Amino acid sequence: MYTLDKLVDIINAEIQNRSKSLKKRNPPNLYTPVNYSLGIGGKRLRPVLVLLSNNLFTDDIKNAIPAAIAVEVFHNFTLLHDDIMDKADVRRNKSTVHKKFDENSAILSGDAMAFLSYQYLMEVDLPQISEVIRLFSKTAIEVCEGQQFDMDFENRLDVTESEYLEMIRLKTAVLLACSLKAGALIANANIDVANQLYDFGINLGLAFQLQDDLLDTFGDQKTFGKRIGGDIISNKKTYLLIKALENSSGETRIELLNWLDKKDFVSEDKIRAVKAIYSQLQIEELTQQKIDFYFQKSTQLLREISLPDNKKSTLLALSNRMLKREN
Amino acid sequence: MYTLDKLVDIINAEIQNRSKSLKKRNPPNLYTPVNYSLGIGGKRLRPVLVLLSNNLFTDDIKNAIPAAIAVEVFHNFTLLHDDIMDKADVRRNKSTVHKKFDENSAILSGDAMAFLSYQYLMEVDLPQISEVIRLFSKTAIEVCEGQQFDMDFENRLDVTESEYLEMIRLKTAVLLACSLKAGALIANANIDVANQLYDFGINLGLAFQLQDDLLDTFGDQKTFGKRIGGDIISNKKTYLLIKALENSSGETRIELLNWLDKKDFVSEDKIRAVKAIYSQLQIEELTQQKIDFYFQKSTQLLREISLPDNKKSTLLALSNRMLKREN
Repeated sequence: MYTLDKLVDIINAEIQNRSKSLKKRNPPNLYTPVNYSLGIGGKRLRPVLVLLSNNLFTDDIKNAIPAAIAVEVFHNFTLLHDDIMDKADVRRNKSTVHKKFDENSAILSGDAMAFLSYQYLMEVDLPQISEVIRLFSKTAIEVCEGQQFDMDFENRLDVTESEYLEMIRLKTAVLLACSLKAGALIANANIDVANQLYDFGINLGLAFQLQDDLLDTFGDQKTFGKRIGGDIISNKKTYLLIKALENSSGETRIELLNWLDKKDFVSEDKIRAVKAIYSQLQIEELTQQKIDFYFQKSTQLLREISLPDNKKSTLLALSNRMLKREN
Repeated sequence: MYTLDKLVDIINAEIQNRSKSLKKRNPPNLYTPVNYSLGIGGKRLRPVLVLLSNNLFTDDIKNAIPAAIAVEVFHNFTLLHDDIMDKADVRRNKSTVHKKFDENSAILSGDAMAFLSYQYLMEVDLPQISEVIRLFSKTAIEVCEGQQFDMDFENRLDVTESEYLEMIRLKTAVLLACSLKAGALIANANIDVANQLYDFGINLGLAFQLQDDLLDTFGDQKTFGKRIGGDIISNKKTYLLIKALENSSGETRIELLNWLDKKDFVSEDKIRAVKAIYSQLQIEELTQQKIDFYFQKSTQLLREISLPDNKKSTLLALSNRMLKREN
């Protein structure tokens, strides 16, 4: 088995290769933003999942590398278009593509990335690639559905927990699950095992997104990488806010609704006030319980997959790292 | 062989079917704009080319129908995103998607359409679909490149004829050519013949786009469907303007540059003045010659394809109809 660090190295080297060849393509105004987007970096989580899953079934992971790059390019495409829709100026401490270039470039370069991801997928000429293309297309459509639900929720105060969970399943979890299943399919793994990995990925993805919600409010600025409290300032319908709206009553509820309604405020005041309400309602604990629930479900599903334990250990190590449980 | 009208009927019925099932999908805010976009109509030229090409090699065209819908959905996706980038309010006498809904919906619904087109393509489980996916992805990337060149040209006065021809090859011709080749591939046609159809499509597409440029200035408002003179008003770098910039000198050139530079003007004045310059420079005749050149090249290529003449006659009829040569 490859180590996680080795897999990240493989991905980064491969992305550098791709970038080099994209740099030679015309028109530069199309490909420069693509390269910029790929160069912003990040944890390369999804491509690592593709390779890791592939490596469960075969020592030779080279057939999975194009698919790994494809899911990373697709993921960056979604970030690029989401940042336009969310009017976000900064990602990973850098200007977003539509700020660095302009909105038209961001739309069109994003489109090109969507099609590039298929072109990368198709580099490997294996019969099972058709199944991977079907999975990938279904996943891509679901990610769009998730983003639309997320935008729809902006205008609603009555989003239920189950609606929220379905939204993050679509927006976040299916791509992690797809990455795992694609890696397995490319290794010609048994379809039932590939589907078990998919289900593992869904639960891991739900835990991962819930934790992202939690860290946005209760995380440590230094390790989180984004500004703490951003979700509170923008009234984002996170698990935390949805539970607070569901569980609050009387004056607490009125105060919460007042903060949601306020147009003029000092950011730090709103963050402090909403966090106080969350504390009162034990939202941090509730969220942590939900994270634990899905994380444990994912490890349970992983245990049930009939593969040698030493094979599964790297996957378990990655999910621990994703959920910051590396003690 | 199916008649052209029969093929259009098949396409329209199939699009209605698809729309019906899209209407049932969630979230409605994602799929309503998709349906709106597909319902705006149009000539359904590209899907007809897929079926027509398929029908050259087989009487049973049902395997080509999903690919036909895929190229139409892809084409509508490009219109949708192009309309955002061009800030166009009206298409085919209806509000564009970003005007009817909003810009975020238009971006995201367009994205979903891009992936839907792959999902449709993959409905047919044939070994040659991999080759179609490769062709389709390459084409989609080229269309993005063409759109970027077109946007780049907005800020330039020195676009050459050959740069312009490369731009319309990418933006318009490759998708027509891809439609023809895809139909042939799905029928398991010989690859050389499929490539001949592709080359025929490129030349037909160049003639078609040049004619679109010509009609935008010299067409008949009633039959053209768009407002005559729109390209002149927006300083669009059409073949006409590029040739006028290339061929003008002295006072004529100064007058042309003045009109391009002017911010405040009465539309009709600018259209009349620029048309007068075009007449002086015989731009209409030059453009018509170029259209004839590519149209004749396309019919020559069609003649060279070794298929019975009665098979090729419908394709010839369609290209005549596209170039309005139905006398």
